[in-house]
Amino acid sequence: MEKEKLKVTFIGGVGEIGKNMTAFEYGSDMIIVDAGQSFPDEDMPGIDQVVQDLTYLKQTKSKLRGLFITHGHEDHIGGIPYFLDNFKKVNIYGSKISLGLVENKVKEAKKNNVTLKAVKAGTIVVAGQFKIEFVSMTHSIPGSFAMIISCPAGVVVHTGDFKIDFTPVGGDVCDLKRLAEVGKRGVSLLLCDSTNVEREGFSMSESVVGKALDELIGKYKRERIIIASFASNIHRLQKIIDCAKKYGRKIAFTGRSMENISEMAIKLGELKCDKDLIIDIDRVDMFEDNKLIIISTGSQGESMSALTRIASDNFPKIHLSEKDVVILSSSPIPGNERAINNLINTLYRKGCQVVNNELADVHASGHAYKEELKILHSLVRPRFFIPVHGEYRHLKNHQMLAKSLGMKERNIIIPELGMQVELDNDSMKFATMVPAGEVLIDGTGVGEKDSNVIRDRLLMSQDGVCAVLLCLSRKSGRVCAPIEIVSRGFIYQDEASEIIRDAKVFIGKKLDEMDLKDMDLNEIKASVRKIATSFFFKNTKRKPLVLTLISQY
Amino acid sequence: MEKEKLKVTFIGGVGEIGKNMTAFEYGSDMIIVDAGQSFPDEDMPGIDQVVQDLTYLKQTKSKLRGLFITHGHEDHIGGIPYFLDNFKKVNIYGSKISLGLVENKVKEAKKNNVTLKAVKAGTIVVAGQFKIEFVSMTHSIPGSFAMIISCPAGVVVHTGDFKIDFTPVGGDVCDLKRLAEVGKRGVSLLLCDSTNVEREGFSMSESVVGKALDELIGKYKRERIIIASFASNIHRLQKIIDCAKKYGRKIAFTGRSMENISEMAIKLGELKCDKDLIIDIDRVDMFEDNKLIIISTGSQGESMSALTRIASDNFPKIHLSEKDVVILSSSPIPGNERAINNLINTLYRKGCQVVNNELADVHASGHAYKEELKILHSLVRPRFFIPVHGEYRHLKNHQMLAKSLGMKERNIIIPELGMQVELDNDSMKFATMVPAGEVLIDGTGVGEKDSNVIRDRLLMSQDGVCAVLLCLSRKSGRVCAPIEIVSRGFIYQDEASEIIRDAKVFIGKKLDEMDLKDMDLNEIKASVRKIATSFFFKNTKRKPLVLTLISQY
Repeated sequence: MEKEKLKVTFIGGVGEIGKNMTAFEYGSDMIIVDAGQSFPDEDMPGIDQVVQDLTYLKQTKSKLRGLFITHGHEDHIGGIPYFLDNFKKVNIYGSKISLGLVENKVKEAKKNNVTLKAVKAGTIVVAGQFKIEFVSMTHSIPGSFAMIISCPAGVVVHTGDFKIDFTPVGGDVCDLKRLAEVGKRGVSLLLCDSTNVEREGFSMSESVVGKALDELIGKYKRERIIIASFASNIHRLQKIIDCAKKYGRKIAFTGRSMENISEMAIKLGELKCDKDLIIDIDRVDMFEDNKLIIISTGSQGESMSALTRIASDNFPKIHLSEKDVVILSSSPIPGNERAINNLINTLYRKGCQVVNNELADVHASGHAYKEELKILHSLVRPRFFIPVHGEYRHLKNHQMLAKSLGMKERNIIIPELGMQVELDNDSMKFATMVPAGEVLIDGTGVGEKDSNVIRDRLLMSQDGVCAVLLCLSRKSGRVCAPIEIVSRGFIYQDEASEIIRDAKVFIGKKLDEMDLKDMDLNEIKASVRKIATSFFFKNTKRKPLVLTLISQY
Repeated sequence: MEKEKLKVTFIGGVGEIGKNMTAFEYGSDMIIVDAGQSFPDEDMPGIDQVVQDLTYLKQTKSKLRGLFITHGHEDHIGGIPYFLDNFKKVNIYGSKISLGLVENKVKEAKKNNVTLKAVKAGTIVVAGQFKIEFVSMTHSIPGSFAMIISCPAGVVVHTGDFKIDFTPVGGDVCDLKRLAEVGKRGVSLLLCDSTNVEREGFSMSESVVGKALDELIGKYKRERIIIASFASNIHRLQKIIDCAKKYGRKIAFTGRSMENISEMAIKLGELKCDKDLIIDIDRVDMFEDNKLIIISTGSQGESMSALTRIASDNFPKIHLSEKDVVILSSSPIPGNERAINNLINTLYRKGCQVVNNELADVHASGHAYKEELKILHSLVRPRFFIPVHGEYRHLKNHQMLAKSLGMKERNIIIPELGMQVELDNDSMKFATMVPAGEVLIDGTGVGEKDSNVIRDRLLMSQDGVCAVLLCLSRKSGRVCAPIEIVSRGFIYQDEASEIIRDAKVFIGKKLDEMDLKDMDLNEIKASVRKIATSFFFKNTKRKPLVLTLISQY
C-alpha cells in the first residue's frame, strides 16, 4: 500500500499580499491556517472586501478539524465571516488577543457557528491525526505564533508573520530555542514569511521606536501631541501610554478601530494602563495642550479616518494649529503614498509640525529582513522549503536566499494560488491545481473579478452613461414619440443641450431609414447603441455606456 | 504718482506638482513662464488632462508679449495647446530641444497661431518693458534654463527646474557664475524649485548613473538588455547609446514618446549616434540577445506602455525569458508604486533579472537637494523669496531653509494658486487673489472638478446605474404598462432576476398608492428614485444611481 501523504494547499496569500489561507490535509483530517482578507485594488471599484474562493474547501469540508490563527491582522483573520458562511461549525484556535479581534468580527457579522479556543505558546492541540504546537514569535501585534504542525507524514514549521526582535516591547519573545529544538529533531517543510526578503541586514527593534517616541514626547514640552499608528500595534500603544504617564499627559483614543482594540486590549490585560490616564475624546478640550496625547487611526491617510477628519477640521473639539505636533508612527503601505502626501500637506497648512519615519525612528517593520530570515532557516534546517506571504518577486528572492544557504533548488517550490503540494519525509512534489482565486464581497452580494459588473463600473467611471428611450408603435413598427435621452457622468452643462438635441435628431433619422418592423427588440437596442455610441464619440471623443429602453404601444 | 510695480501671478504649479505657469506683468506688458499640464488624480475619472484656469489671462490678454519655456517636460509645456485655444497669436521662446517638443505637441493639436523662437543660453529677449535672459541649468532634460527677468521695478531670477550637477553627461552646465554675477548686481526676487528640499545633502550626478549603466551593460555579457527610462532624459539615452557602441550592441527604441523624442533629438543633433547603431524595433529578432539593447518607455508601470506590453507577451517579436535583463532606470513617481510593483512581479515570472534604483545607481533625480538649494540661495542673494514647484510641504520647508540662511520671514511669501504679488526694489506684498484653478480636459469637452459629471462617474464606479422606465397614461395619470428596469454595474448574475423582479413589483405597488395625477414629471421621477434607491439598498447594501425615464401616452 502506498504511504499516505500530507497535502498542503495554497488557498490564498501567495502571489499577492493579503487573504492568507493554507490548508493541510492528511488522510481524513484537514486543518486550515488563517483566513484573511485583502483590500480591493483600483480595478475593483465599489468592492468592499476580497476573500478566498472556497470551492476546494467546500468539497473537503467533512475533514475540517479547525481553523488555526497565527495572529490577528486583517490579512489573516478578515475572511473569517465569509469562511463561517460556508461551514456548519468551526473551532478557531489562536492567542487570546487574536481571538479577541476575531470575536469582535464574528459578533459584528452575527455569526454563531463558531467556538473560540484560546491557546498559549507551548500549547499542543490535537486535531485528528494532526498535532499543532504554538510557538511565540515577535511581530507588530502581540500574540503572534509560528506553528509546528506534525502528522505521520512529517513535521511542518509555518512561521506566520514574524521578525526576530531581541529587545521587544512587552512580553512576547521570539522563541528561537524551540525552533532550534524542533529543527534538530528534523523538519520536513518550512513555510516562511517573505515580505522583507529584499531588505538587507536586520530590521529595527521595536524598542528603538519606543526610545524615539519617548524622546519626541519629552522634547515637545508645550505642544499637544497627536500620534497616528495602527491600532493593532498594541506594544506601540503601550509605549505611548508609558510615555504619557512619564511626562504627565492624558491619553485619548480616537478612530473606531483604535477605540475598539484599545478597549479590548485593556480588558484582556494586554494593554496595561492606569484608569485615570485615559480620557474620552470628547473631553480633550478640557485639558491643556501639553497635558494631552491623542492616539489616532489614519496613519495611511485613509479618507474617512480620524486623523484625516481632524486635519480637515471635520472633527468636533479638535482643531489643529501651530501648537500641535503630529507623529505618523507608521510607514506607507504601497499605494497609499499619495493619500499620505495629501494628509501631510493639509497638516502643514494648519501650521502643525509633522514627524514621520523619514525624520525619526518612529516606525519599525514587523517582518524579518534578509539576515533574520537566514537565522530562521539555519535554526529550522528544513528538508523542503516553500516561501509564503509575499508577491512573486519576494517568493522568488526568498528561493534564492534559501539556495544561497545550501538548499537544493529541487527542494524548493514557489507556490501559486490553488497549488497543492504532496509531502512525506522523503519527498515533496507538485500534485495538482485546485479551484482558487478571488471572491469579491459587494454589499450583500458576491462577485468575480472578471464579471460584467466590474467591467461596466470601470467603463462608466470613464465616460458615464446615457439612457435612450424609444417609443415604438406595435402597429406600424415605427418610432412614434420623440426620443428621450438622459445622461449622467457624460456631458458637461455648456455642451449638453446642443449635443443631446443633435443626438435625438440623428438617432431618429437613422432609425427612420431602417425597417424596424422586421427586427426584434434586441436587434433594435443593439442598433441604437451603435448609432448613439458613434455619434457621441464623433462629437465629444467620449464613449458613454448606452442603455436603450423601449416602450411599445 | 505712485511708482509702477511688477505683478507676479501664480496661475499654476504651486500647491501641487504639475501644470506650472507664472505670469509677470509690468505696466502694459505681460510675459508668461511655462504652460504645463498635470495628470488627473484618481478622483477625476475619465479625465484626459488637467490644465490651468486661464480666466485671469484672458482678461489681460492684450498685454501678452510671449510665452517663455524653462524646459520641455510635460508639467511645463503640456498645457500649450489649451493655452493656444485662448489666445490669438503667441510667440513661444525656449531652447531648441524644448521647442522641438512643443512643435510635436502643436502639430498634433493642429494649432497654427504660434511662432516658435529658439534661444540659447545667454540670449536676451526684449518683450515690451521686460528683458529676459536665459541661463543654462542642469536638469533631467537638455536645454533647461533659468531666467533673469528684468523690468524697471526689479530683477527676478526664476530657476526653472534644476539640480547642480558638476559632472553632467552631455553639454549642459549649470551656469552658477552667471547667477553669481547677477546676484552681486542685485536681485529683487528669487523663484526657486522646491521639489527636493526635504532631501538632505547633494543629489547624485548623472555621470554616476552613466557609470552604473556602463558597468551593468558590461557585466551581462550573454543577456539581452532592456532599459526603461523617461524618453525626455536625452543625456541618459546618450549614455546608453555610447555603451551600446562600446559593447558592440545595437539599439532599438520602443514606445511612442521614446520613438518620437529620440528621432527628434537625433535630427536636432542633441543625441549623437552612428546611423547603423539604431535598428527598427521590428527587426530585433534578427539579432543575437547579446547584440541588443532595447530602450523602452514604461518605467512607471503605465498600463499601455511598451514595457508593460512586452512583459505581458503582448508585443510582436519580443518575448521575455531568463535570457533578459530589465533595467528600470527611474524612480517611482508617488502614486505609481503599485503599478511598478505589478510590473516587476510580471518580469520575475518571465524569469528576467530586474535591476532598479534600489539595487544599483541607475537613476538620479533632476531636482536640487537641500545643500544645492543653499548654494543657489547664497549665490543669487535675493531680497525677496518665493518658493515654487512643490506641494505645500515643500514650499513650507523651503521657506524654513531660506530663514535658516538669514532671510527674514516677512521677505518670503508662500504662494497659493491664484495669488498675485506686487513687487518693486524695496517691497514685496500680497496684492490680491485672481480666478485660478483646474480645468479638466475630457475628450473635446472642458469641465470643472466639482461638476456633476465627475461626481456621477465616481458614484457609478461604486455601485453602477439602474434605469427605470415608467409608462404613464395621460388620461388616467396611472402606470399603464409593466415597469422596465435595466441595470449596469450594479447587480451580479446570481441575484439579478430575483431582485429586479421584486423591485418592479415594489415600485409598482408604491406608485399605485400615490396620486400621480397631481404630480409633475420631475416629482414622479424623484419619487421613483427614492423608492428604488431605498429598495435596492435594503436588499443589496448597494446604492446604484437611479435614472427614471417616463413614456406618456
